[in-house]
Amino acid sequence: MAALPFHGFQGRRLYINDVAMRDGLQIEPVFVPTEDKIALVNALSRTGLAKIEVTSFTSPKAIPALRDAEAVMKQIERVPGVAYVALVPNLRGAERALECRVDELNLVMSASETHNLANLRMTRAQSRHGLTEIVRAARGAATAVNISISTAFGCPMEGAVGVDDVLEIGDWFAGEGATGITLCDTTGMANPLQVEALCDGLAERWKGLELTLHFHNTRGMGLANALAGLNAGIVRYDASLGGLGGCPYAPGATGNVCTEDLVHMLQAMGCDTGVDLDALLDCAAQLPGLIGHELSGQVVKAGKSDRRHAPPADFAETRERALARDRA
Amino acid sequence: MAALPFHGFQGRRLYINDVAMRDGLQIEPVFVPTEDKIALVNALSRTGLAKIEVTSFTSPKAIPALRDAEAVMKQIERVPGVAYVALVPNLRGAERALECRVDELNLVMSASETHNLANLRMTRAQSRHGLTEIVRAARGAATAVNISISTAFGCPMEGAVGVDDVLEIGDWFAGEGATGITLCDTTGMANPLQVEALCDGLAERWKGLELTLHFHNTRGMGLANALAGLNAGIVRYDASLGGLGGCPYAPGATGNVCTEDLVHMLQAMGCDTGVDLDALLDCAAQLPGLIGHELSGQVVKAGKSDRRHAPPADFAETRERALARDRA
Repeated sequence: MAALPFHGFQGRRLYINDVAMRDGLQIEPVFVPTEDKIALVNALSRTGLAKIEVTSFTSPKAIPALRDAEAVMKQIERVPGVAYVALVPNLRGAERALECRVDELNLVMSASETHNLANLRMTRAQSRHGLTEIVRAARGAATAVNISISTAFGCPMEGAVGVDDVLEIGDWFAGEGATGITLCDTTGMANPLQVEALCDGLAERWKGLELTLHFHNTRGMGLANALAGLNAGIVRYDASLGGLGGCPYAPGATGNVCTEDLVHMLQAMGCDTGVDLDALLDCAAQLPGLIGHELSGQVVKAGKSDRRHAPPADFAETRERALARDRA
Repeated sequence: MAALPFHGFQGRRLYINDVAMRDGLQIEPVFVPTEDKIALVNALSRTGLAKIEVTSFTSPKAIPALRDAEAVMKQIERVPGVAYVALVPNLRGAERALECRVDELNLVMSASETHNLANLRMTRAQSRHGLTEIVRAARGAATAVNISISTAFGCPMEGAVGVDDVLEIGDWFAGEGATGITLCDTTGMANPLQVEALCDGLAERWKGLELTLHFHNTRGMGLANALAGLNAGIVRYDASLGGLGGCPYAPGATGNVCTEDLVHMLQAMGCDTGVDLDALLDCAAQLPGLIGHELSGQVVKAGKSDRRHAPPADFAETRERALARDRA
């Protein structure tokens, strides 16, 4: 084992993509008003995040919470240096997103056949065919396009997912001109050993592509998995403000890794996330008011680890009494 | 960086000390009936845990929740191979504990002067003097004695704690004959880089002593910190069933690392904890009923990561419709 491997993370530039506005809001029962969404994206834009997944250009019937995709995408203030991403499920969605000048399209398919069918109502072959058309359209429009591979670390229905299935999907889209690949631990099944095993050599395999890890904290391993990703040299992470976004397979369990908790750990370790953590915590503190319930983020409750507390009210007296015992 | 460092953890024997019955219950407002405590310790004893911190021999006025220390310690069924530990604050407590034939005394003092005064109402010098007497008494009775060093990774009142302060306390008690030292992240301030830095070389420095790490999940970093501890070669971990035990400085935040979540991660990574995780999860599931509120443990809610879910009810139909599109 190398001596002090985590010391090598100090100063490393990392890139955080916040997915709360899309991956989080899409499963919330409330409709967050369009102007509130815009205000939150604008606030997030000023925190120094590398990317923001703003919305999804899907059918308003399928995801009513995001039925204002055009309005949000057109009215947000674009901060230079921040990439504004939208999920698109099909060519029609891609056209709508490109018309709104998104910086990047995010496409989704599953590594497992059962999850792809259950989630997208297509076989993997059908998804691949449809998404390949979108990759070509995006490249034709000189727009970045990322493939998020769901269930890359396990399928809640099939169980273990073959590494080859994941690599083969990634290889395909890399060959078709995708600009990024995200490996998603959709239901929080990954563990650090597995992350290490899957990520070993990926940066070389998909050289020139942006490689991102998307973890869930369903079994509490989200930040430990990110540590394993760092150890494997991965510098891009999805996370969700407040940990917004649950898991349909585990009621009561937490979902996405919480952005501010992830940034807090990374900064404490000396990594350069580019993020103003206090500004990010201010954004996170607004979320419960927008969606009407508490969230799983820890740092927003406990404060940053350098937070100081006053000693108890009787401290001076306690101290004096203790010192008096020495004098007695 | 060494290739695949976490792969080296596979098969490594780890030792888990569950502290819920003491560190957890001591801050609960309810008094868990003595027979329920005994039943839970007996159930925990059969899970394969290396140690169980059973109770605290303190004044019933100071900690009424643990006023039945003698009854619990005398009536539990001792499983060979499990070490039954009790916290003792002073010589009188040590005598009571030794009279009950505990396997190990656990003593506590803080690395920071302010926390020691606020928490124990003594200066560090006074604590050290008193605890040294207890170490001698324990060794005279041929009983193991562990020093838990609170605020070893930071003090909520003073902030950063000097590594030398921690090492100096450990060195002192190592010299006085203590059999174990636990470094405690009392309010969840540690990060993996810091764990790596503090733990580097400790196993050699305190050779022959049992060296344990005690993490809190206050800022979500508990399991990530354990990973850093593993990387530094530490094989003993405190944790609390269900994550029982909060943090007085962070209302609403989680406290101790959750035993079943820790064991779940370690086993998923191929470590040998000796623990029957299903039996441990059964124990965790009983806790909310005993203390009257939900807990922060994730795996007990989400199930183990290999848990399989049935596909949606309309899956066969969805699949048939998708395949029909290919035939059309």
